Amino acid sequence: MDETGTRARQADAGDQLLHVVVDAETIQTTVALVDALVDECHLYFDEDGIRIPAMDPATVAAVNLTLGRSAFEAYETEDAHIGVDLSRLGDIVGMADRGQLLSFTLDSETRKLEIRIGELTYALALLDPGTVRSPPEATDVEFEFTGSVVTESGELSRAVKAADMVSNHVTLGIDEERDSFYAEATGDTDDVSLAVPADELVDFSPGDAHSLFSIDYLRAIDRAMPKTPEVNLELGIDIPLAVRYPFADGAGSVEYLVSPRIAAN
Amino acid sequence: MDETGTRARQADAGDQLLHVVVDAETIQTTVALVDALVDECHLYFDEDGIRIPAMDPATVAAVNLTLGRSAFEAYETEDAHIGVDLSRLGDIVGMADRGQLLSFTLDSETRKLEIRIGELTYALALLDPGTVRSPPEATDVEFEFTGSVVTESGELSRAVKAADMVSNHVTLGIDEERDSFYAEATGDTDDVSLAVPADELVDFSPGDAHSLFSIDYLRAIDRAMPKTPEVNLELGIDIPLAVRYPFADGAGSVEYLVSPRIAAN
Amino acid sequence: MDETGTRARQADAGDQLLHVVVDAETIQTTVALVDALVDECHLYFDEDGIRIPAMDPATVAAVNLTLGRSAFEAYETEDAHIGVDLSRLGDIVGMADRGQLLSFTLDSETRKLEIRIGELTYALALLDPGTVRSPPEATDVEFEFTGSVVTESGELSRAVKAADMVSNHVTLGIDEERDSFYAEATGDTDDVSLAVPADELVDFSPGDAHSLFSIDYLRAIDRAMPKTPEVNLELGIDIPLAVRYPFADGAGSVEYLVSPRIAAN
Repeated sequence: MDETGTRARQADAGDQLLHVVVDAETIQTTVALVDALVDECHLYFDEDGIRIPAMDPATVAAVNLTLGRSAFEAYETEDAHIGVDLSRLGDIVGMADRGQLLSFTLDSETRKLEIRIGELTYALALLDPGTVRSPPEATDVEFEFTGSVVTESGELSRAVKAADMVSNHVTLGIDEERDSFYAEATGDTDDVSLAVPADELVDFSPGDAHSLFSIDYLRAIDRAMPKTPEVNLELGIDIPLAVRYPFADGAGSVEYLVSPRIAAN
Repeated sequence: MDETGTRARQADAGDQLLHVVVDAETIQTTVALVDALVDECHLYFDEDGIRIPAMDPATVAAVNLTLGRSAFEAYETEDAHIGVDLSRLGDIVGMADRGQLLSFTLDSETRKLEIRIGELTYALALLDPGTVRSPPEATDVEFEFTGSVVTESGELSRAVKAADMVSNHVTLGIDEERDSFYAEATGDTDDVSLAVPADELVDFSPGDAHSLFSIDYLRAIDRAMPKTPEVNLELGIDIPLAVRYPFADGAGSVEYLVSPRIAAN
Repeated sequence: MDETGTRARQADAGDQLLHVVVDAETIQTTVALVDALVDECHLYFDEDGIRIPAMDPATVAAVNLTLGRSAFEAYETEDAHIGVDLSRLGDIVGMADRGQLLSFTLDSETRKLEIRIGELTYALALLDPGTVRSPPEATDVEFEFTGSVVTESGELSRAVKAADMVSNHVTLGIDEERDSFYAEATGDTDDVSLAVPADELVDFSPGDAHSLFSIDYLRAIDRAMPKTPEVNLELGIDIPLAVRYPFADGAGSVEYLVSPRIAAN
């Protein structure tokens, strides 16, 4: 099989709206990042690359993922918008070995997405986008973030795991006085607190901020994270948390928005 | 412990019908290959080596494994025929570390198989061969294979995994016109197809062939396969599939015969 | 974060009875060794280091672990005695990465143990020592060990795993005539026996010994063992078994005492 893994198939596809080739690790990461929140999603293709916006069933967390065309080995598409069973897609792309290339071709006659790995073709039936939950248009302008932090992902990961041991909720915030980013969770007997001072942060735009979040969503986001050295957080007072980081050598970008919980009492 | 791991035991064994020594990886692979189909089996020892014929309880698939005496560090036996609890044998040999040698001695008085790993001896009670299912004499002359293929095991493995995602059955065949080996499975919404052209096959004797198989057996056979680069398949029209490949650096050979399903409608 | 990981916290702690810093692997091993028998335990701190004595709920097995101050990166403490939920402590220290340092500070005001990993602080509520089971004062003088063995841990480990396949009990002993250390277990159909002759033992003080033990405890002790090359056993006739070995490059020492079962009939 040659590098693009497509060969004779191109001639057979009829009207091709879409034909892209990408390496296994990139597509596996892409699927995992969205799968953290949803089982099915919209995929938008245009000349710049792909975009995947999604919102979890409880409408607490949203994700917006973009993967620029530079991440692809081949990228030929007209604008396209499809609905996908993400769990099924994850099982399929999970079969590829490290370093293998996968090709995706949309067969406009059958309305199936033909996924090719080696000499294997999996024709995945698509979902009618009208039936897949659509997140509201996500624009950051709506949220008045007061502070921004870039921290080592390991610190945040450990804070979320530890908070999960004592509580269902965690407060994330910025302490302007102490010039630090913090996370706090209180349990019946135990407490967890993270306090990362400015000189330990990769980047820091301090501003008073604190909001309470359900830990389940932060754990899901943390579990899906690839070996990312740093993660960017934007916070405010009782407003959503934005979690952003690049992947696929910078060609991809993921942003999660997690709504805060209204603190009881 | 010296390399053979047997020392004083040999003097104690009484009438030895059988005494062989083999490395952990070889015996662990041997057991796994047969365990894919059955929980108990016959073992035949003669001057050439061992032979293990078995048939699964549903009499759909059969395996015939041979391991030549060259695979053994020591091989002293008269002709012998024993019945073994394969699950138990697997647990025992699984305790040996990579590179360790195991010695097997048949104690004719106790009718137990003494398995030695290091300074540990496990005396395994044997099964009366008369109570263990015996496969019919398997001779390939019965089947009119029309085609033969040697393909990279990764391609077949992925095809079986993918087919398992959409259906209980998969059709394997040779397309004489397109000069290729193929696998196809159809589900409610999704389809899977593998098409390996002649120039991608390690070896190819084309001839029209197609049969439908239950995926469960192919998955079991695939899971038991060690890191084998290539696998030989023999097919025909609505006749069993033969899957063959060597192991233990060529000293071992395994052949599975999987009966076809009669296609409904 | 500097090496000790403590910085500003020291100033905040109020009356510090205790402040120690230790690497992840050492504390994770320490917790695992005691967790093999109990869910909660006493920790004693003095100028020499820490001591953890514990007895399992069924009062069959006891452990006495010591970890000298040389195992710590920093060790500042007055004599202290605290009660700890060991399962919870295991989850906490399990979050540290290989090579990371953890600091433990006892906050005398809150009576919580503040555990610091990176910039994360977990305040663990302690248990009232009066409510935690206390093992009787363990002194070896009470037991008349007749023999002592130092064997490769792999041999003992395999013997325990194998015995567990055939029986709930295993006899450990020393055969003075054959000058060997042995283990034997008898099942309904299968038998297991280990026989390590003197020249295969790292050290050997022979003396007639044999006792019957419940395998569950030996399995738990075996599972908790780090990559220890050798283990020291002391045995007698129908008296407890002592299992001892060093860890943390010799700074730590663990001893288990497992009571024998009175053989039925």
